[in-house]
Amino acid sequence: MSDTLTLTEAQIHALAFDFLRFHGLAADQAQAMAQVLTQAQRDGGLSHGLQRLPGTLDTMSHPAFNRDAVPVITQVTPAVNCADAGFGFSILASMSGLDPLIDSARKLGLAMLAVNNGFHSTALWPVVERIAEQGLVGLSMNPTRDWVAPAGGTRPVLGTNPIAFAWPRPGRAPYVFDFATTAASRADIALHRQQGKPVPEGWGLDAEGRDTTDPAAVLAGAMLPFGGHKGSAIATMIELLSGPFIGDRTSAASARFDQGHDAAPCHGELILALDPALLASPDDIAAAEATLDAITDQGARLPGARRHAIRAQNLRDGIPVDRALYDRIRGMMKSEG
Amino acid sequence: MSDTLTLTEAQIHALAFDFLRFHGLAADQAQAMAQVLTQAQRDGGLSHGLQRLPGTLDTMSHPAFNRDAVPVITQVTPAVNCADAGFGFSILASMSGLDPLIDSARKLGLAMLAVNNGFHSTALWPVVERIAEQGLVGLSMNPTRDWVAPAGGTRPVLGTNPIAFAWPRPGRAPYVFDFATTAASRADIALHRQQGKPVPEGWGLDAEGRDTTDPAAVLAGAMLPFGGHKGSAIATMIELLSGPFIGDRTSAASARFDQGHDAAPCHGELILALDPALLASPDDIAAAEATLDAITDQGARLPGARRHAIRAQNLRDGIPVDRALYDRIRGMMKSEG
Repeated sequence: MSDTLTLTEAQIHALAFDFLRFHGLAADQAQAMAQVLTQAQRDGGLSHGLQRLPGTLDTMSHPAFNRDAVPVITQVTPAVNCADAGFGFSILASMSGLDPLIDSARKLGLAMLAVNNGFHSTALWPVVERIAEQGLVGLSMNPTRDWVAPAGGTRPVLGTNPIAFAWPRPGRAPYVFDFATTAASRADIALHRQQGKPVPEGWGLDAEGRDTTDPAAVLAGAMLPFGGHKGSAIATMIELLSGPFIGDRTSAASARFDQGHDAAPCHGELILALDPALLASPDDIAAAEATLDAITDQGARLPGARRHAIRAQNLRDGIPVDRALYDRIRGMMKSEG
Repeated sequence: MSDTLTLTEAQIHALAFDFLRFHGLAADQAQAMAQVLTQAQRDGGLSHGLQRLPGTLDTMSHPAFNRDAVPVITQVTPAVNCADAGFGFSILASMSGLDPLIDSARKLGLAMLAVNNGFHSTALWPVVERIAEQGLVGLSMNPTRDWVAPAGGTRPVLGTNPIAFAWPRPGRAPYVFDFATTAASRADIALHRQQGKPVPEGWGLDAEGRDTTDPAAVLAGAMLPFGGHKGSAIATMIELLSGPFIGDRTSAASARFDQGHDAAPCHGELILALDPALLASPDDIAAAEATLDAITDQGARLPGARRHAIRAQNLRDGIPVDRALYDRIRGMMKSEG
């Protein structure tokens, strides 16, 4: 028997949705979460796919989590909307706020959406890619938990602070990136620990702030930003803009808020939408295409290209799902049934 | 006789202003350029200080350069202003557009200024720092010239694409960064060549796209982004947002526009202003302060801190100016007099 099942998008969505509903999550919440987990699984982003499903139970068991949360969207100014997630999952609030965000951006040229008080455990790219599908530029960022020391420092202050960007391309998949501003992801460091392998230098520090290649020491100490002091500065910008600027928790405050529940971090998210139709002529759009083509023509890869290629293949051939994970998820529905 | 003169801000400004006026630059243009060169010199940013003055003659001799350019500010939407530099220096247009930008940001929470058709040879931080002095967050970026290969590539496509950010701090100098998204600055590579020293690995490629530590080969080949594929993605975002998005030249187009004149690159600049007063409470501002303090308390440095320390010292003790540079600038006024 193969270790891998091949499922359709609809089957994966149904599995995730049924799991979340079984565990008491309201239908709208479950729908938004199932959709984004399905998208990640479909695109080969396994660490943000069905693998996240069992952990949602830890998040839902946090005393502040609200299984029935209904996001409240408020227009604060014609350019600024807020989506209060009400201590449900962040993704429903982000997705619920996209239409007003895009409306505002189309009218004004740019607009922002502040997502507040959401438990955040999903990738950022589905949100910015959705914005790009509407012909706008999307930019998104959020704090996480204070796992990361600043460049030149010894102790964690910053989050892994991901940033995602999507640029619409006529007739083609958008240019999209989405990455943590750390040298490596926390999942990758944990994988090294599991496999008994050292991590490369520059990934992190031990609890005394010394360079180390021991993954367990990094996880107990501090991760490091990508790109030295420049990456550290960008991580700090993300911390400020998607934390205090939008009236929400810093990574340190998000960690305190968890109180040992091992929930997904609860914090805000900043989403910008910008409309190229305002100032860019067809020639400008062609120049952007020429820039991106000049990158791929020399054999360099665009950040979202591998994901889009996997998507195309999986939509044709079916989406692989690890059988053990599938069985585990099914089992977690029966055991309490 | 000392190799260094000690001048006041007013003296440096007068030197730069007189030089630019002597060479036919309109008073407003000269004033804006003299101010930003003086600020850089005052803060120890020598590569963006008086050292830039002789090179302004190359820029002013470009056939498209307009010594009498008067920036035209247009409100395109309530959130978007454009400042057309009219083929004068970019800095006058940026500074002229700041008041409308800040007005819009105060009303709406965020706003943008697109600066177009400016010859750009100044640091970005004076603009974002000015925004932060008004209590707003500033973010700025621009393309330059296609000197930089994408990560995994072999040939230059992107500019050195600097990004600058300023976060206002109550009663203190703002948190400010301003850096090129390359592993090292072009000036630093040129300095290695001048000193006959190899550059570290990862700074650039030769004309055949191979890794090299020969600074001359890098300057003739391609510089590399900072931070591998993540830095490369950010440099690409800057290329798109501050080029085609605002209807202006890419780094490649800016290089073509130069036609061998060795002028400062002519392109656009994107400036965003965001008002923390909209969503951030005093507690949120305090949390931002705690984050920044947690960085410095462990001995790590904030990006703008050294510059602000040099400023304080120079304002107290006088601003050092290399005597040979000073004499050269004076001589360049007499020789044509």
